[in-house]
Amino acid sequence: MCLLIMLLLGMVNNACADEGYKLWLEYNKIADRPAAAVYKQQLKYMIFPAESDQLKAAKAELIKGLEGMLSMHPADTKSITGGQTIIIGTTQSLKGLAVIVPDSIGNQGYLIKTALINQKKCILITAKTDVGVLYGVFNFLKLLQTRQPINKLNIADRPRIMYRVLDHWDNLNRTVERGYAGSSIWNWHRLPGIIDQRYIDYARANASVGINGSVINNVNADALILSPQYLTKIQALANVFRVYGIKLYLSVKFSSPVELGHLKTADPLNDDVRKWWADKIDEIYRYIPDFGGFLVKANSEGQPGPQTYGRTHADGANMLADALAPHHGIVMWRAFVYDNNVPDDRSKQAYNEFKPFDGKFKDNVIIQVKNGPIDFQPREPFHPLFGAMPNTALMMEFQLTQEYLGFSTHLVYEAPLFAETLQSDTYTAGKGSTVSRILQGSFNKKLITGMAGVANIGTDLNWCGHPFAQANWYAFGRMAWNPDQSSSAIAGDWLKMTFTNDAGFVSSIKKVMLQSRENTVNYMTPLGLHHIMGVSTHYGPGPWVDNAGRPDWNATYYHKADSAGIGFNRTGTGSNALSQYAQPVQLHWENLQTCPDEYLLWFHHLSWTYKMRSGRSLWDELVYHYYMGADSVKQMGLIWDKMQGKIDVERFNQVQQLMKVQLTEATTWRDACVLYFQAFSKMPVGAGYPKPEHPLSYYKEMKFYYVPGIGGNNYMTN
Amino acid sequence: MCLLIMLLLGMVNNACADEGYKLWLEYNKIADRPAAAVYKQQLKYMIFPAESDQLKAAKAELIKGLEGMLSMHPADTKSITGGQTIIIGTTQSLKGLAVIVPDSIGNQGYLIKTALINQKKCILITAKTDVGVLYGVFNFLKLLQTRQPINKLNIADRPRIMYRVLDHWDNLNRTVERGYAGSSIWNWHRLPGIIDQRYIDYARANASVGINGSVINNVNADALILSPQYLTKIQALANVFRVYGIKLYLSVKFSSPVELGHLKTADPLNDDVRKWWADKIDEIYRYIPDFGGFLVKANSEGQPGPQTYGRTHADGANMLADALAPHHGIVMWRAFVYDNNVPDDRSKQAYNEFKPFDGKFKDNVIIQVKNGPIDFQPREPFHPLFGAMPNTALMMEFQLTQEYLGFSTHLVYEAPLFAETLQSDTYTAGKGSTVSRILQGSFNKKLITGMAGVANIGTDLNWCGHPFAQANWYAFGRMAWNPDQSSSAIAGDWLKMTFTNDAGFVSSIKKVMLQSRENTVNYMTPLGLHHIMGVSTHYGPGPWVDNAGRPDWNATYYHKADSAGIGFNRTGTGSNALSQYAQPVQLHWENLQTCPDEYLLWFHHLSWTYKMRSGRSLWDELVYHYYMGADSVKQMGLIWDKMQGKIDVERFNQVQQLMKVQLTEATTWRDACVLYFQAFSKMPVGAGYPKPEHPLSYYKEMKFYYVPGIGGNNYMTN
Repeated sequence: MCLLIMLLLGMVNNACADEGYKLWLEYNKIADRPAAAVYKQQLKYMIFPAESDQLKAAKAELIKGLEGMLSMHPADTKSITGGQTIIIGTTQSLKGLAVIVPDSIGNQGYLIKTALINQKKCILITAKTDVGVLYGVFNFLKLLQTRQPINKLNIADRPRIMYRVLDHWDNLNRTVERGYAGSSIWNWHRLPGIIDQRYIDYARANASVGINGSVINNVNADALILSPQYLTKIQALANVFRVYGIKLYLSVKFSSPVELGHLKTADPLNDDVRKWWADKIDEIYRYIPDFGGFLVKANSEGQPGPQTYGRTHADGANMLADALAPHHGIVMWRAFVYDNNVPDDRSKQAYNEFKPFDGKFKDNVIIQVKNGPIDFQPREPFHPLFGAMPNTALMMEFQLTQEYLGFSTHLVYEAPLFAETLQSDTYTAGKGSTVSRILQGSFNKKLITGMAGVANIGTDLNWCGHPFAQANWYAFGRMAWNPDQSSSAIAGDWLKMTFTNDAGFVSSIKKVMLQSRENTVNYMTPLGLHHIMGVSTHYGPGPWVDNAGRPDWNATYYHKADSAGIGFNRTGTGSNALSQYAQPVQLHWENLQTCPDEYLLWFHHLSWTYKMRSGRSLWDELVYHYYMGADSVKQMGLIWDKMQGKIDVERFNQVQQLMKVQLTEATTWRDACVLYFQAFSKMPVGAGYPKPEHPLSYYKEMKFYYVPGIGGNNYMTN
Repeated sequence: MCLLIMLLLGMVNNACADEGYKLWLEYNKIADRPAAAVYKQQLKYMIFPAESDQLKAAKAELIKGLEGMLSMHPADTKSITGGQTIIIGTTQSLKGLAVIVPDSIGNQGYLIKTALINQKKCILITAKTDVGVLYGVFNFLKLLQTRQPINKLNIADRPRIMYRVLDHWDNLNRTVERGYAGSSIWNWHRLPGIIDQRYIDYARANASVGINGSVINNVNADALILSPQYLTKIQALANVFRVYGIKLYLSVKFSSPVELGHLKTADPLNDDVRKWWADKIDEIYRYIPDFGGFLVKANSEGQPGPQTYGRTHADGANMLADALAPHHGIVMWRAFVYDNNVPDDRSKQAYNEFKPFDGKFKDNVIIQVKNGPIDFQPREPFHPLFGAMPNTALMMEFQLTQEYLGFSTHLVYEAPLFAETLQSDTYTAGKGSTVSRILQGSFNKKLITGMAGVANIGTDLNWCGHPFAQANWYAFGRMAWNPDQSSSAIAGDWLKMTFTNDAGFVSSIKKVMLQSRENTVNYMTPLGLHHIMGVSTHYGPGPWVDNAGRPDWNATYYHKADSAGIGFNRTGTGSNALSQYAQPVQLHWENLQTCPDEYLLWFHHLSWTYKMRSGRSLWDELVYHYYMGADSVKQMGLIWDKMQGKIDVERFNQVQQLMKVQLTEATTWRDACVLYFQAFSKMPVGAGYPKPEHPLSYYKEMKFYYVPGIGGNNYMTN
């Protein structure tokens, strides 16, 4: 009954517990009294004229943060009398004070600095725009949340990416495709009349990390979203978002003119179709004057698109772009496409379809490209389209929701995955052409820039299912703001803001976080393996899947294990997907001497006895990684156990339970995959390793019902 | 931008806001310092030995409550030294103190009294059992929550009903049939490994009002629930519930032996079937030694049942009862049945099917009867089965979820509805044979007793969607404990425990609550009208529905409006449903002189010009009620507006928004129904009444998509 006792203890302690609802905006009281006193001393007075909604929101947030952390409320004043004043506003709202903001911070950047104003030492938070001030306030609060000194401040920051967007794969029936944290937070039935507190807290959290866009519905879109009944509801959300500097976007179904407009075609070059979209877009802007634009998944996985009518992706995207342009809206057009013909190598398809259209898209079209060429696998090489379309705006699509990373049960901090892609050098414009620089528009200043994260948010009390999944939302925002930030620094800030500033906790758990994604790669898909999960549900291991609806949905299509060896040959002697990369990259990955272990089986089919850098055979190396992966989860659990007492009991217990489940699932992954591949390699598993609990048949026959994330009233079996 | 400003203000104020998650167990700090000091003075020391899980839970709750309300923790002591001690335990756990508990409080009752023990004045909370102590502690905390004096206590209480059960209509895919508060709180995918804090807080809330059973899945049951995979998950829930004195029950599909056991039949008299159930039940008890039993919906709305095999309800129920009896489990068998033949009057069917079997059910079978003979309408006369089966255990089924009462958007306090049914006199054993007394077993002491409430609980932050819907969960528990408690007293306690002890707030809003159900009857189904809501979704008005799947799903079947008049003739000249009631009741309702207006059109078809007691024509009276109903919602809103500042801003705002939507929907109901019936009456609406905003056709053509509560990936239109 150990569990029950822990739970009971938990109850005693939660006088103000929130089960993680407050995210990284906990604003818990600063227990270190001298430190708190030093802060308070510098915040006695406040000059913060707030007339606009955004400035009001910034001011309310500041007060909320200071009341939470310091139990104080700076005295409102209109003039600087004796220092100890925090002055907040734009040059315009602070017009009496002659504040100067350098052009370099742009329209969304901010300054936080210690300044002498009227001969008094003050803290100044300023920006060119209201939203810049809002960002400045959140970042000032972060200084307190992370216990930084505020007596000598000189911070100037600005976002490096223009469109920093969350993509919600939320359906109108409130299921969430690949959502593992409850149902959709958008309560359509009750909108527009009822504004859930969730909407406001969602917007606050986004603004706190600089996210400035939200695509509220699934890319597999329902045409109804564009009906007046829904636009009224959407308008109510946009009104909340606007206060926090967030634009609302919609995913649209390309065939909406047929379904909603009762036209006979959705051909993008048809005049009636063009007029229908233009009228519809005008209508949307009547509801939402600052509407952001559309996200479109076209001609992919059965979705309609311009190709349905013999037109190109450029025809389709440009048609919508033309209609949005007068309103300053944009089109985010997804490159994740595959048609009904099974390709020799699915990884090549996006490049093949899009590269020819480089330079053909309108200025307000941005192509949304997944980080890798398959589909959000635990590890993929960077997508070959990055750098391959120098005259086309490309934005990144990361997946925060853990479709292939253990759902919301596994602790996987994704920032290292993001960073790995972002810091990859494409060589497309010579050495140093990192994905990050491409995304920032460094090689073509004319282009718009963007980064999207597929949201991991739902109605769970803690928003994301796993307390640590919140870190992925947070880290995405931080990296969309500045793609070159370090995963480690972000983890540190997040831990302090979310849990505690206890140094032992932060340093131990930061290490756990930084290692966590590699753990998952190891127990799921080491050495470049990919797409070997359960079919449809994407839950649990399924390397044996060979009877899915089409060949490129099968695991066997990807790992190609046979008695001779394993791996997908994407070199010149195989699918030659490598040819889609710049030559230095191509050579590096093609050459077995230089191809990193991490990508080995992604690009090469090798014999089971192939000798690895470690000296082990490929088979032994594979086994080593699987066992290391599962073992690292065990180690992580032991470290966590030592954190008892350092944080609130509820979240401590919850994470402890989750880690136990993760260990069980990691062990299942390991045993199922090792047993499955062993049937090909016929080689032994080293004597030191524990034996699998069950034979392979057991794992193959495991059945899972009502697996979350499928999107409806499903009864899927794995 | 008034809304936004309010919302921003809300943010400032919610340092410890919980959006209603804490229900009536808020335990907010008692702001009245002298009052708090008086309490503290009496609670300096505590003797509370707690070795069992239930006593540990009781102790943890006490500490939680005292820390929340008084910021104190009584000092643990082992002996009474100087008074000011609270002594808590069973006679056994307090064995050194020679505490005596009278037999009359039974196994679940408790005493709370000021006592002289060892010559010292103490507060004693005691009971025969651990769960009795738990109930005592919650009720002691209630005294503090409602600011009662605790210096002269002498409370002895016990439940009047044995089985006090919540029925969850939760599906395994986490949709909730007729659920309007998000999705199912049971996270099946993550069970058994992850114990959500929700499960614990759910159990705490139930225990606080004495609910001692939970049927966790939909009566339209999935056979999978009995598979080992699910039993493992269910066991984890039962382990949590047990600590709070709650037994877990399952809804079962009668054909499970076919679907899960691969038998050819589910005939209850077949030996293989009987063995299958006996084995399955043994298996369940291996997982859950104190498993409660089954709830069965058989031969109703397409569900399989014994009649499918030519057997009777008694055959079916008794077969399961035999298998459960050795384990002390019970069968709750629903009387809500209707077969595929459309009856002359659906209201008669349950009585006709069950009455002949009086005395034929095993002792551990209890027939679960809805409060009225149709289906949880805003108002129904009591169900004729109550009192009609003196040799059969009958339990009440109330519906807490507001399927026909405005979903979770309308403020409808249901206790007056419960009380109306409970205090109805059936006359079946002479005057005073109230439904309440029948349920309490007053007329047959041999029978087991029970009351069920169809839960209104989901994953919404505040559990029930509407802050005031929590009151229905609370009131159900209180009335299941003692069916004769007053709606008003319960409302008062709930308001104080949930919101504030502010006297102005409590008295104003208690009045609002007590009036609220009658408001809804008035704008939906006044004067005995029933079942005129939207088809399938049950959302909004649908008096015109005449093309549903079968005649008795149509509104026209029930209101029978024509040019001559309106109402369902259930007298001797009509369906004679009245004959199912005891003669005094029959005569009372048959006679137009005595039949109350509330039931008029339930039992009588009357001309539009029929003269009512008020002097008005029936038509004018109908119009009067519809307008009064909608107007009362407006009045309620005005009263609420005055409460600003008396409670937390979040819930104030939320209720204010909900009331606006309720007013819109009430007005739609009013206008749609008045216009529809006017097409028959051809009579004018009084000059003083505002005109409907739209013509009848507008209301008939309103379309609603993805209405909640249907149970899956639905796209229903109304």
